Amino acid sequence: MHDFTYYNPTKIEFGKDKENNIGRYIKEAGIENVLLAYGTGSIKKSGLYERIVASLKENGIGYQELDGIVSNPLLSRVNDGITIAKEHQLQAVLAVGGGSVADSAKAIAAGAKYDGDVWDFFIQKAQITEALPVFTVMTLAATASEMNGNAVVMNDETKQKYSIGTVLVNPVVSVINPELMATVTPDYLAYSAVDIIAHSIEVYFTASTHPHFNSRVVESIVKSVIETTEILIEDPDNYDARGEFAWVATQALNGLTPAGTAGGNFPNHMIEHSLSALYNVAHGAGLSIVIPAWMKWYKEQNPAQFERFAKEVFGLNSADAGIDALEAWFSKIGAPVRLSDADIPRSGIQALAENASQSAKLWGMGEQYPIETIAEILEKA
Amino acid sequence: MHDFTYYNPTKIEFGKDKENNIGRYIKEAGIENVLLAYGTGSIKKSGLYERIVASLKENGIGYQELDGIVSNPLLSRVNDGITIAKEHQLQAVLAVGGGSVADSAKAIAAGAKYDGDVWDFFIQKAQITEALPVFTVMTLAATASEMNGNAVVMNDETKQKYSIGTVLVNPVVSVINPELMATVTPDYLAYSAVDIIAHSIEVYFTASTHPHFNSRVVESIVKSVIETTEILIEDPDNYDARGEFAWVATQALNGLTPAGTAGGNFPNHMIEHSLSALYNVAHGAGLSIVIPAWMKWYKEQNPAQFERFAKEVFGLNSADAGIDALEAWFSKIGAPVRLSDADIPRSGIQALAENASQSAKLWGMGEQYPIETIAEILEKA
Repeated sequence: MHDFTYYNPTKIEFGKDKENNIGRYIKEAGIENVLLAYGTGSIKKSGLYERIVASLKENGIGYQELDGIVSNPLLSRVNDGITIAKEHQLQAVLAVGGGSVADSAKAIAAGAKYDGDVWDFFIQKAQITEALPVFTVMTLAATASEMNGNAVVMNDETKQKYSIGTVLVNPVVSVINPELMATVTPDYLAYSAVDIIAHSIEVYFTASTHPHFNSRVVESIVKSVIETTEILIEDPDNYDARGEFAWVATQALNGLTPAGTAGGNFPNHMIEHSLSALYNVAHGAGLSIVIPAWMKWYKEQNPAQFERFAKEVFGLNSADAGIDALEAWFSKIGAPVRLSDADIPRSGIQALAENASQSAKLWGMGEQYPIETIAEILEKA
Repeated sequence: MHDFTYYNPTKIEFGKDKENNIGRYIKEAGIENVLLAYGTGSIKKSGLYERIVASLKENGIGYQELDGIVSNPLLSRVNDGITIAKEHQLQAVLAVGGGSVADSAKAIAAGAKYDGDVWDFFIQKAQITEALPVFTVMTLAATASEMNGNAVVMNDETKQKYSIGTVLVNPVVSVINPELMATVTPDYLAYSAVDIIAHSIEVYFTASTHPHFNSRVVESIVKSVIETTEILIEDPDNYDARGEFAWVATQALNGLTPAGTAGGNFPNHMIEHSLSALYNVAHGAGLSIVIPAWMKWYKEQNPAQFERFAKEVFGLNSADAGIDALEAWFSKIGAPVRLSDADIPRSGIQALAENASQSAKLWGMGEQYPIETIAEILEKA
């Protein structure tokens, strides 16, 4: 059991219609105006936009808007948001959308309180010391951005997809209404399932110390993701399955699963960021390609945990059988498992490995993951 | 999946020697003086008291002391603490001890900001609207008081053991150093194990809606408690087992396990409070008597969950086998399972049932648990 600090002050408001209270939650925090950040218009089609704006107005919360945030969110749009927030002296950022919108909101929240270039935080040239309060209304369950201080943004000029992490940008309040997530397409449901599983198993496999309780929670998450995804493929309107899927997504990356472990890291995320940066594949789709390859490469470094995973999650008796079962399940739900499935040619591996090795250095994994190693892993995909 | 609000802003500082930073944690919160609350002297024998005081002095934190807090903590001592806190205009309460000390600290924190009688909060005559910040250094793992807003106190005049619950008294920072817990006696280790299991299974069995994820987390907690208790009985200095035991204790009652469930309540705690109020048995010892009796009485109201418990926790195939296995395990670790084990005569059942039925009304369980029903359950013990 390793030393740790666990601190997650985000308040989760989970349930039907809770987005209609967002103005009140913001007002209760003493905030008078916000930057309303969202994506490419689906919240207007669904009517969610109008309900959010109505709740803000009802509670006397002023707002400026930032729309057009895309998946694999761009630094340029973050900078637009920072400009608006500074110009109008906005007091908070309200993200309405999925992980990309929430992540952009966090970067804007940090950048709005900083005189320099917000990218400084991503390349660890500067440290975040203050940020605007962030609020979220989530329309997609996957990243757990609603209950953590992480944000991943892509620099559109340099094609670097890097991250920040600080409790200062943990959302103050996050609304999770499973009904808002019911219209997700089957492919994005699959990518989300992969992302949630990835968040929970990265540390599970890589940690050198992992208490049984942590392992059990991870296995609980994975089993619930598998069960609820299968229900939702058949029955997208199943509220209970949608709700459990959303809540385990949150639990997978809110600090619970790694607390007390030692030595864990996120190699699959690190490598995947290069796939989405260079080929603009969805993050979850990149992960379903990387994970089985990485598992086959890594399994001998922690055989007991790989055997445990096979047994507890799939009822199987060997590490290899567990890896195969997970890969087969990814395929079954329609997630790609080979580079070729995402139209990434073998000739692209070298550039991917070079890009990812930059992240490896920033994430303190440079020695373990030099270019050749990353290329070796990607060859397995 | 039922609507819920999850909000737990307590920061956990977990690990070796972290108590030596307590003065710094308090100072970082902008606090200049505290009420230092503790029990009946074991922290002086162990040297913990001196380290705490040194850390306070080093950080310029003034303090007044309240000692002599006993298990099943008394309202009279809480009132003493409130008097001291008001008289010296103290800014926070620091609890160093087990659940009783933490619970007393919370009641003091609420009472110090209230002009009336603090007992008003317990009988729901008044609502807590503000409280002093609470800090804890835990020496016993059981109640999860370190990461929730609950406090149970006994009115020494009326013999009522009642509770409060508000996030306003959630500790700001709690230190969990498993090494401070290594000297717990075998009987209190057993009682603690029972208490942790009780916290996690009450809602598990009584909820009408329980997502699989919640059930899995509860089963994970119970399995880890059983495993680590057995290790600690043989090897009290096993740090990893002590740490995992402490952390699952915290997880069992910090809001995680019931989030998304519906209809759950705490009948075993409700009934047990009367045992400890009228016979001064340890809370965990009272619970190990009540739980098997209550399970035998209740099992037909939620047969699927009782069968699930038997299978997932003990690998057994019937509800009855699961109940018997849990009762046998309580006996094995030295916890009492019959009223007679705690020298409570059958003739005492009526008075216990009457006392508990008052709690039942306050807890909104009056219809489900009239006096006759509570007596019927206790007859099974």
